[in-house]
Order: sequence, then C-alpha cells, then structure tokens
Amino acid sequence: MAAVIGNSVANDGVMRSAEALGRALVDAGFRIINGGLGGVMEAASRGARSSAAWREGDVVGVIPGYDKSAVSEHVDVCVATGMGWARNVIIVASADVVIAVGGGSGTLSEIAFAWQLGKPVVALDTGDGWSHELAGRALDDRRNDVILRAELPIDAVRLAQEAVVRKGE
Amino acid sequence: MAAVIGNSVANDGVMRSAEALGRALVDAGFRIINGGLGGVMEAASRGARSSAAWREGDVVGVIPGYDKSAVSEHVDVCVATGMGWARNVIIVASADVVIAVGGGSGTLSEIAFAWQLGKPVVALDTGDGWSHELAGRALDDRRNDVILRAELPIDAVRLAQEAVVRKGE
Amino acid sequence: MAAVIGNSVANDGVMRSAEALGRALVDAGFRIINGGLGGVMEAASRGARSSAAWREGDVVGVIPGYDKSAVSEHVDVCVATGMGWARNVIIVASADVVIAVGGGSGTLSEIAFAWQLGKPVVALDTGDGWSHELAGRALDDRRNDVILRAELPIDAVRLAQEAVVRKGE
Amino acid sequence: MAAVIGNSVANDGVMRSAEALGRALVDAGFRIINGGLGGVMEAASRGARSSAAWREGDVVGVIPGYDKSAVSEHVDVCVATGMGWARNVIIVASADVVIAVGGGSGTLSEIAFAWQLGKPVVALDTGDGWSHELAGRALDDRRNDVILRAELPIDAVRLAQEAVVRKGE
Repeated sequence: MAAVIGNSVANDGVMRSAEALGRALVDAGFRIINGGLGGVMEAASRGARSSAAWREGDVVGVIPGYDKSAVSEHVDVCVATGMGWARNVIIVASADVVIAVGGGSGTLSEIAFAWQLGKPVVALDTGDGWSHELAGRALDDRRNDVILRAELPIDAVRLAQEAVVRKGE
Repeated sequence: MAAVIGNSVANDGVMRSAEALGRALVDAGFRIINGGLGGVMEAASRGARSSAAWREGDVVGVIPGYDKSAVSEHVDVCVATGMGWARNVIIVASADVVIAVGGGSGTLSEIAFAWQLGKPVVALDTGDGWSHELAGRALDDRRNDVILRAELPIDAVRLAQEAVVRKGE
Repeated sequence: MAAVIGNSVANDGVMRSAEALGRALVDAGFRIINGGLGGVMEAASRGARSSAAWREGDVVGVIPGYDKSAVSEHVDVCVATGMGWARNVIIVASADVVIAVGGGSGTLSEIAFAWQLGKPVVALDTGDGWSHELAGRALDDRRNDVILRAELPIDAVRLAQEAVVRKGE
Repeated sequence: MAAVIGNSVANDGVMRSAEALGRALVDAGFRIINGGLGGVMEAASRGARSSAAWREGDVVGVIPGYDKSAVSEHVDVCVATGMGWARNVIIVASADVVIAVGGGSGTLSEIAFAWQLGKPVVALDTGDGWSHELAGRALDDRRNDVILRAELPIDAVRLAQEAVVRKGE
C-alpha cells in the first residue's frame, strides 16, 4: 500500500501530477491510502479509480473527524479516526512507501513521521512545497538513505516499487 | 461497513459464530472492519474471505501497533495506528453498524464508544460475555434505542441491514 | 495521580459526591486527572481546588479538542489532545487508580479501558449509572480483582490509597 | 505553558541550552511540557526543576507508551498516552508556545504540527538540526509569521513571552 500525501488545496500542476500518480500506482498493483479529503488527496483517489486495474477497495481514505460524509467521493474505504491531525501518523504507518506531492506543513509532518517510522519516502518534485525542498536529502542521521526525487509520476511509482522490494529483502 | 468486535481469545462456539457472521456480512454486501488480530477478529476475517461475494479489499484490520506483520493473514487492508487501545475508537467510528460477539473488557470499551458515537449496535448472543449481558438494553439515556439482540449470525446481519437503512433515512 | 471519571451532566447528588471526592483526594495527597469538561469532571476539579492541601498543578484536565478555552476554569494543567473520545484512554492510562462516579457510556468506556490497562478501579456508588452497576464485580477474567465499591467519597479515597499501595508492592 | 521539543539524544551544547531554557522558562512563570523522555526533554525538565520559581506540577511529560515508569525522573506530571508518535501532536496542542532546540525528524514533526495548529514557534538556534534550519522562515503560506530565531535561552523565553502576549490580544 502506498500513501500519497499533499495539500488539501493545490494548483493545477500539482493536481494533475497527483491524479497521474494515483492512476500509475494502481496500474502498478498498489493500493493507495491518503487523508481522504480534497486537493492532492482527492486527485490521487480519482486517478486511482481511473486505472484499468482498479478494484473497489483499492482507495483508502483516513479522515480526521468522525463524520464519514466528509470523505472524498473517490475513496473506497473510509477510516474515520476522530483524532484530528494525529491521523497523519496512521496514514504513513499503514503504508509500505510514502509519496509526497507538493506539500505544506501538514505534508511536512507526514514526511517527518514517515522518516521516523522507517518508511521509504519518494518526493514527486513538481517544483512546489516540501516535496521539492526535501527531495534528495536526509531528515536526520538515523537513516542511511535519502528522500528519493522523482520528476514524473511514473518515476515515483518505479522508485516506490524498488524501495518496497529493497525493504522486503 | 460493519465492525465485528470480540475477544482476541475465544471458545469454539464464539469462533464459529464469528466466522459465520463474517461470511454472512460479506454475502449481504457489507465490507467488514475489525481489530486485525486473533480470536473473534480473525474468525470474522476468515469467514468474510470464504464468502462467494468476497472481493479483495473487503476485510479491513485496524491494528494497535506500527508493525504490519502483526495483522491476521485474513485481512485485506491493514491500517496500522500505533495508538494502542485507542484504535478501538477508530474501528467503531469507521463502521456504519457494530456487531459484538462474546466479549470482555476490550469489547465492552468498543460497545461503549459505538453507543457514544451513535452507531447501531447488534449483540450476537452466544451466551458469553458483554454481548450476552448487554443485548436488549440501553447503555444510558442519550439514545432511544437499545443494543439489538441476535440469536444467529444471519439474524445479526439482518438487524445490521435494517439499522443501516433506518439510520440513512 | 487519581482519575475521576463521570458524566459531563449529572444530578445534584452525583455532583456533590464528585466535589467531595476531589477535595478528599487532594487532602490525601493525590493529584487528580479528568476529562477537563463539565459535570462530574468540573465538580471534582472544583473540590480538589478547595482542599487546604491543593497546590497549583494538582488538577489535570485532558480535553478532547484542540481549543484550550474549552477546559473547565477549575483545571490547573490543560492537556489538549484533539483526539476526541480517544482521550478517554489517556485519562485512565495516566492514573494510578481510577474512581468512577455515576456514569453513562463515556464513563463505561473509561472503566473498560482502566480494566484492560490493569488500573485499580473504585466505584463511588451514588446509586446511579455504571459505577453503581459495576461495583463489586469483575469485567472479565483477565484480572483476579473486582471493581471496588465505596459508599462515601472518603471510603473511595481510602480504597484508592490501599489499591495504589498494593499495586506498588 | 511552553512546549520544549528536541532530540532524545543530543550533544553537550544542545543539552546545556535545553537545561538553561527549562530554567529560564520557569523563572519567567511558564509551566513546561515535553515528551517526558531523555535528551533535550530531560535536560529541559531538569532545568525547570532547578529554577527558584519551580513548583511541583510545573513539569509535564507526555510519554508515547502506557508504562509510566519510562518517564524522566525530572517530570512532575506524567501523561501516559499509549499513542506512540501521535503523542507529539498532544505536546504542541497543549502549549501556548513551542520552543525547539536542535532537533531531528521527531522534532520536525512537532514543529510542523505547531505550525498547523497556529502555535507561535521559537527556534533556539544552537547551530544544530531543524531548529537551526527553520529559524526565521515560514513553513507554508497559511500563516503570516515565521519561526522566530533565538540565539540564547533567555532570548527564546523573551520571544515566547511576547508571542503569547500577541496571541492573547
């Protein structure tokens, strides 16, 4: 399962990248998990659902509140936490690999948690936000790897696949 | 989505009921969510997967730790919370209806949360535990309904379906 | 530290008991922790502050939201969780002993968590709610003890002290 | 209440800064809250307790596990969450102002949450870690302010005081 993280409000370029990423992930056999709301989350979910390989249940949205009606219509499985921002931890903890697109402080918290939890992190570098700024670097010295930079959604998926394989070895 | 709650260790009768319940829920078109570990949780997951209607993605397990390898092999989607017992809240919050089978203090906490969150609760009464004890009664006066008693798994599913329909009206 | 749990809305008898309990706990050298809102929580906090032994910092309130202005004015230390009902777990996990007064489904969830976490539980039996119903019994067979029944606040404090001593041995 | 955040393992310079910071915060009338474990957390707690103004109850430690024996001996009030890394959210949500010293990915997650939650953030710049890197900048455009840079613990306290006053206006 791959987490797709990014802003709840994003510009057109980021949205297109997120949608292409969601589709490519499901094409490649990943289930996706995200924060279940708008922006990058919704674009990734919509993209996932547009894949020919999509099966009902492939798109998991983990929302901050208790009200399931807040979830994006493109989510298959809604996990309602009622835990506010702490739900960010759950999104990355549930993933085998985390892919960031653009991103403000919420995304930054998720990248930081992913790093702490030992999850491979891929930054789809659209030139915006924390995924742009952190691509290619380490967050601290507890890990030997870096946040992987991808230029295109298809590259992000390939890096995610390789990272999951390495992790499993 | 229906939550199935119950002990991580259970006797044969409870296990058989949980398995039959999981199967009947998926037969009836429900996705199920549970705590992702052993006992009633695993029996329900195994039952769900044995349904002819089962699709990959229909069995969601929400585990207390970060280590996804702890999840039951019969779970399709593993949500790793790292939140210990607080994950019980997430299980019931994500459900449209909650069905208890047997149950000790962990199950009791889930029934209590389900009641607080306004979820319909069905007690599959196997003669054991808190689902037996609370079947047919209200937990407090904040709601007008009661915990519904079901004698057989198939009855529990019917009550769950009716409750979800009423809730949606 | 003693957790005092009970309803956010309670009748006069329960409120008086909760206030006397808060005072007697601080008299006896306990710090108290509760859910930081109204009803039994506030009465216990107000009582604690009225003790001659009260020191600023003795009353800890753990609230469900992020907005600290929601906390009772009688709380010294406000812990804002943003975690909704899951904050109930934190209240009991932080306590050495848990004392229930009256109580609906929220209190029931806390009693259940206290039991799971191995915390001694005292029910101040005002004739109301789950503390009345569960006094003197076990929730399941994972523990050898029972929920202790106290008739008066002063008895509850004595039982709490004894339980903490036993636990420490 | 001021949150002090930083690594659980830190070099001597960072540890001395954290200890001086803890003392200066209590000197200035702040209660402090931190993660309750070692490194910067413990140094800040020890410093707080060494202030002439310290009162029992001024040092709050919010630990990730359920086992209260894991808390630093310099903490007055131990809040046990059992919520793993999600406890980082609670630390910053409970604070009126957040002060970072050094810091790896855990601290980064806390800075990010503080930013999201609208808390003033002060970076005590010891030349190390994320507090060094982020001092003087904004994390995204949802806020008009920046992370404030302090060169010395006493400066950090002054900035924290000013920020809390501005916030209250």
